[in-house]
Amino acid sequence: MGKYFDYNATTPVAQKVLEAMLPYFSIRYGNPSSQHKPGKEAALAVKKAREAIADCLKVNPDELVFTSSGTEANNTAIKVVAYAAKHRGCHLITTLSEHHSVLNTMRELENEGFEVTYLPLENSGVVNLDALKRALRDDTVMVSIMAVNNETGVIQPLKETGRILGDKPVVFHSDMVQALGKTPLDLSGWRVDLASFSAHKIYGPKGMGLLYAKRGIQLWPIIHGGSQENRRRAGTENVPSIIGFSSAVRRILANREEVWAKQAEARDRLENFLRQVHPALIVNGEAAKRVNNTSNFIIPGVNGKRLVSDLSKIGYYIASGAACASKQTEPSHVLLAMGIKPELALGAVRISLGIDISVSEIKKLGSVISDCAK
Amino acid sequence: MGKYFDYNATTPVAQKVLEAMLPYFSIRYGNPSSQHKPGKEAALAVKKAREAIADCLKVNPDELVFTSSGTEANNTAIKVVAYAAKHRGCHLITTLSEHHSVLNTMRELENEGFEVTYLPLENSGVVNLDALKRALRDDTVMVSIMAVNNETGVIQPLKETGRILGDKPVVFHSDMVQALGKTPLDLSGWRVDLASFSAHKIYGPKGMGLLYAKRGIQLWPIIHGGSQENRRRAGTENVPSIIGFSSAVRRILANREEVWAKQAEARDRLENFLRQVHPALIVNGEAAKRVNNTSNFIIPGVNGKRLVSDLSKIGYYIASGAACASKQTEPSHVLLAMGIKPELALGAVRISLGIDISVSEIKKLGSVISDCAK
Repeated sequence: MGKYFDYNATTPVAQKVLEAMLPYFSIRYGNPSSQHKPGKEAALAVKKAREAIADCLKVNPDELVFTSSGTEANNTAIKVVAYAAKHRGCHLITTLSEHHSVLNTMRELENEGFEVTYLPLENSGVVNLDALKRALRDDTVMVSIMAVNNETGVIQPLKETGRILGDKPVVFHSDMVQALGKTPLDLSGWRVDLASFSAHKIYGPKGMGLLYAKRGIQLWPIIHGGSQENRRRAGTENVPSIIGFSSAVRRILANREEVWAKQAEARDRLENFLRQVHPALIVNGEAAKRVNNTSNFIIPGVNGKRLVSDLSKIGYYIASGAACASKQTEPSHVLLAMGIKPELALGAVRISLGIDISVSEIKKLGSVISDCAK
Repeated sequence: MGKYFDYNATTPVAQKVLEAMLPYFSIRYGNPSSQHKPGKEAALAVKKAREAIADCLKVNPDELVFTSSGTEANNTAIKVVAYAAKHRGCHLITTLSEHHSVLNTMRELENEGFEVTYLPLENSGVVNLDALKRALRDDTVMVSIMAVNNETGVIQPLKETGRILGDKPVVFHSDMVQALGKTPLDLSGWRVDLASFSAHKIYGPKGMGLLYAKRGIQLWPIIHGGSQENRRRAGTENVPSIIGFSSAVRRILANREEVWAKQAEARDRLENFLRQVHPALIVNGEAAKRVNNTSNFIIPGVNGKRLVSDLSKIGYYIASGAACASKQTEPSHVLLAMGIKPELALGAVRISLGIDISVSEIKKLGSVISDCAK
């Protein structure tokens, strides 16, 4: 697919993942709720997939609920906690840099009478933890902070956040969609109660997400119906995609240090090259810890969407921000929250690398960007 | 997969459907929201799939919203209408024989303060339309009646329902998950405002549903996030499954009269044979119009779940009712609503045929059922 550098938007399903899925479409196609042999076999396959993912994430299988997307996982986590705690408090805390599936769920809750504090970011892109400390109130029921920003790759300080929350009766949710496979995760060590994941960001299928809910966190459906997922999410289980997700999780966590090192080398090479050619280059989030596959930068004077479009014409595929917001003409809310001026923010582009890196392709990418920018 | 006679629970993905899906996993894997070429190609593929389904259903493409399941489509239809109309009225009408994704959504709305009337059935399984006329009130905002019952195959009188609703300001929703491909559907002729569909019941993939919303019916998301599906359902589009759904719809509607005739012959043969051997046989819904692929019957003295289990051991796969309720030990709510006594209802089994019928297999099925029942 040409030279694809937009792996934070979506990834191809890996060959091994697809191979794992294939039998479940047309051969082992039973409904896991059916009580005959094909049904029980499908249920067993789902059970094993859940166990394998739990093993990878170092959690218990009964703490995992399959959803149709990371978006649905975020919606479920936030709404269920908010509605359940309504008697106790109506205050939620999140950050200005969250994905729209968190931000728009929060906006919806605001419409319903909840109060939401949106934490500001440092210029580096890291959430301001002093602001978190100040924002916490007796009626705060939830804090939701993403692990890794999808646009900049900035890693948020979840461990420190967990420490600040300590033994307060506040549920801690994290959107980990962009973090899985890209940086170490420690769900229990970081005091995370709920976490969201998505398969299609890690070489798994689209239409498949996952919600981790620590034992003790009571979940119930936002989609009502049958008693699937231990009564926590109704609808016939998407067996092939669950199998694919499991395969993808195991795959993305293998050899990851090696992959990360290669990504860092490629990313640094690209940024260094561009800075040589364009000394005014701004790398967004550079001062923060970032995942190694992501580079978000601005070449002053260059329009981001135009650059994306020009590069696409010659077969190089990058992004001007989050895919799901790419039709908007407004500058990125993440960059604005980092203190970047709107007219400058419109210049931003995002490169996100996959796990297979070719040094020659990265070199080529640098020169075509530089050529197009001129 | 042995002798599978449980096509109302789920179907295998048809070979042609899978072939249509395959390129979208690992080759044309773009995110439809991305603004580069692979993204635009994915968006175009989704657009064409939507148009093809719209064409099959004789509706407009912008009236179709892809969801992750029939369950999600039912939830969306009912909740969005209920919440939107709350200022005007809080009364909804449905039937006692709906799928759990409708019933449990209605129960949830009852918890939230809505009032729901559950229409009784005739003994035939057909909804009592006199009861509907009596139930309609000035504050009734929605009527939801399924097109075909999943357990019995009984066809509900949607056309007559539409006539009764006439120009009343009542939104008419129908769960058509079990109807598509099994009986003629006339969305506009029947005055239907909203209708739900599912891919995995028609040889398409699991994890893919569809909501039809007539122009003028305002929909908004129950899952918040990006602006996908024209701002009516957030989350990255499940491109391969959307392509598969489109392929499956076209396939299931081809040669359907021929398929229906074969199914009727096979079903009648089975029921006639069993009645000869077991004169006390009760065929549930026999007095009503039924789709031709479904037979739900009771051999008095025989336990349904036991029969399902015994047949499974010898490689014949049938159901004792709806798959998603198959772990329950209570008798079917549908059969109870038809006036069947609980102890008798526990004897019910369901045979549901696919589109490929083998007369010899049906004969064999009749004799193994009869043998096991003895």
